[in-house]
Amino acid sequence: MSSTRLASHSPLGLHRVLEPAGVLPQAAWRLDPRPEIWPDEVRVRVRRLNLDAASFRQLSESTDGDPDKIRHAVLEIVAGRGKMQNPVTGSGGMLTGTVDEVGPESPLGLQVGDEIATLVSLSLTPLVITDGLAAWDGKSEQVPCEGHAILFGRSIAARLPDDMPAELALSVMDVCGAPALTHRVVAERAASVVAIIGAAGKSGSLSAAAARAAGARKIIGVVPHDREAEILRGAKGADGEHGLVDEVVIADARDPVALSGAIAAAGGPADVTVVCVDVPGCEGGAILSTAQGGTIIFFSMATSFTAAALGAEGVAADVTMLVGNGYVPGHARLAIELIRTEPGVRGIFQGRISE
Amino acid sequence: MSSTRLASHSPLGLHRVLEPAGVLPQAAWRLDPRPEIWPDEVRVRVRRLNLDAASFRQLSESTDGDPDKIRHAVLEIVAGRGKMQNPVTGSGGMLTGTVDEVGPESPLGLQVGDEIATLVSLSLTPLVITDGLAAWDGKSEQVPCEGHAILFGRSIAARLPDDMPAELALSVMDVCGAPALTHRVVAERAASVVAIIGAAGKSGSLSAAAARAAGARKIIGVVPHDREAEILRGAKGADGEHGLVDEVVIADARDPVALSGAIAAAGGPADVTVVCVDVPGCEGGAILSTAQGGTIIFFSMATSFTAAALGAEGVAADVTMLVGNGYVPGHARLAIELIRTEPGVRGIFQGRISE
Repeated sequence: MSSTRLASHSPLGLHRVLEPAGVLPQAAWRLDPRPEIWPDEVRVRVRRLNLDAASFRQLSESTDGDPDKIRHAVLEIVAGRGKMQNPVTGSGGMLTGTVDEVGPESPLGLQVGDEIATLVSLSLTPLVITDGLAAWDGKSEQVPCEGHAILFGRSIAARLPDDMPAELALSVMDVCGAPALTHRVVAERAASVVAIIGAAGKSGSLSAAAARAAGARKIIGVVPHDREAEILRGAKGADGEHGLVDEVVIADARDPVALSGAIAAAGGPADVTVVCVDVPGCEGGAILSTAQGGTIIFFSMATSFTAAALGAEGVAADVTMLVGNGYVPGHARLAIELIRTEPGVRGIFQGRISE
Repeated sequence: MSSTRLASHSPLGLHRVLEPAGVLPQAAWRLDPRPEIWPDEVRVRVRRLNLDAASFRQLSESTDGDPDKIRHAVLEIVAGRGKMQNPVTGSGGMLTGTVDEVGPESPLGLQVGDEIATLVSLSLTPLVITDGLAAWDGKSEQVPCEGHAILFGRSIAARLPDDMPAELALSVMDVCGAPALTHRVVAERAASVVAIIGAAGKSGSLSAAAARAAGARKIIGVVPHDREAEILRGAKGADGEHGLVDEVVIADARDPVALSGAIAAAGGPADVTVVCVDVPGCEGGAILSTAQGGTIIFFSMATSFTAAALGAEGVAADVTMLVGNGYVPGHARLAIELIRTEPGVRGIFQGRISE
């Protein structure tokens, strides 16, 4: 490493971008994954990759489920790009491992030996695989793996808690931005009525618990059918008296009139509406279900920006609409704490993991 | 009109939806444009349609610019759908006209004889054309037109001011959501430094003036090239001393590193960043240009929801990202008032109109 390169390191990892020059690591075609670290970086000994579901599906289908072929495909991507970013889906995933070296200027607060999960995408994380993925059967997005990865000054990582299985902790951290932002918005706005669209899912159930912790008086949980309604009705809140939600509503979130009618009947409109279902077309329903002056948080990656913007204007809805940023300081800690204290949410997660 | 239908009228106009049943008027294929009004409706005698730019371009191209063919195409859409919603682009536009009849329960505050512009899209406004568009040359999105249109209880309309040309007032009202939301956000957050991406444009210049009126200390205007920089430098603020913006920055908004570097050099990062340029790929630059704890308002219809959500997470940016809702109460009044009092903004609008 020349001193010129050392002098030019960036907390965003720009110094690791090989091509095209000048873009952010996520947009780069190829990163420099060398094991030597710059002063604000951290090197991690990788234990496991958790491929993004869309990426794994694409890889699995394009290799006809053949274990040798899918291993080869992943190895080729990582060797060619210096990161595990599926060129078709653009997505990555996360990883777990052990901290191996911490640069003197790293702001992440990690210690050598810490067991961690990365909370920034693999699509921007420099990565080298050294075991040929020999321990992976190619049948699951959980990929046992040896090698190293690099965290930048502005990367995010969280220590794995020692009081719960790693798989549970990982699936919690994967969605931990949703409860953190929900908590902040409900607390800031002193929201009384909160509607969670997709409340029996992972991000939805955590967001319901976060809304309660932030002081919501009434939580309306929306689910698409009876089976999920049953799961949600069976979920208790932390106090053992209330449910995780106060009202369970079965409605099609894509039908604005039906959804807003059902939420109104359950005590709405909502001061804060949280959209946690990954199906397109939920914008209009969320807008009509929210009170004038209220706030909608869109966590679904299927959200259409234009449908939200034009939909609100079309019905003269004075609602604040937030893009669900996956990063809020302290998000992993809050979500793990909710899993520890909320038996209903923990039950929902355990049920989803064993599915 | 049967009493059953009368009883079931909805401020959203659901009673005017013919097919498919149950959707909102914007999503409907066909509306009922009958001239008889329900108790909370208003009927307008139409004077002019202002077709959405994307819609007019599509119609013009698909009819080879032939005036007879494009007139026929618009007439056919309106006759078939009961509204002027381009089936290819999905977009509409707005209209001006004179209030003809006001239902006893209308909450819009209009009087018979008022000259108004509608601020909800033509894509959800029941419309009948009666003059065969004989006065339209087919060469401009400004369509002289006779007929009637219907406003619902939750539609939005504004009286045309009598102290400025209708064309100026219309082009102001077309973008009036941006300054209104900018004003609210800057005032609520007592923002000090505000960056406007696309500050020499219509929504950008109005938003800059709104940020100043809301108390911003420093306004950084970003433009793509010298010609726009000159326009912006020549625009004076309301006090005649300051410019409309304090710093003019030339940068490519699609280059995150260049944009954030230029904004930092001009006094950034920004507490509030307002994105007013209709080009894709500005999310990363806006995120990097905004201080931790700051807010971004996306007004561009080219904004990608996922690029914003994943981009912020990827650089651990604790920023609040707002979908630019085109409706804020009082938006038209605020924007017209800014045009009256801000010579710099008025000059930019007049320059754009005469282009």
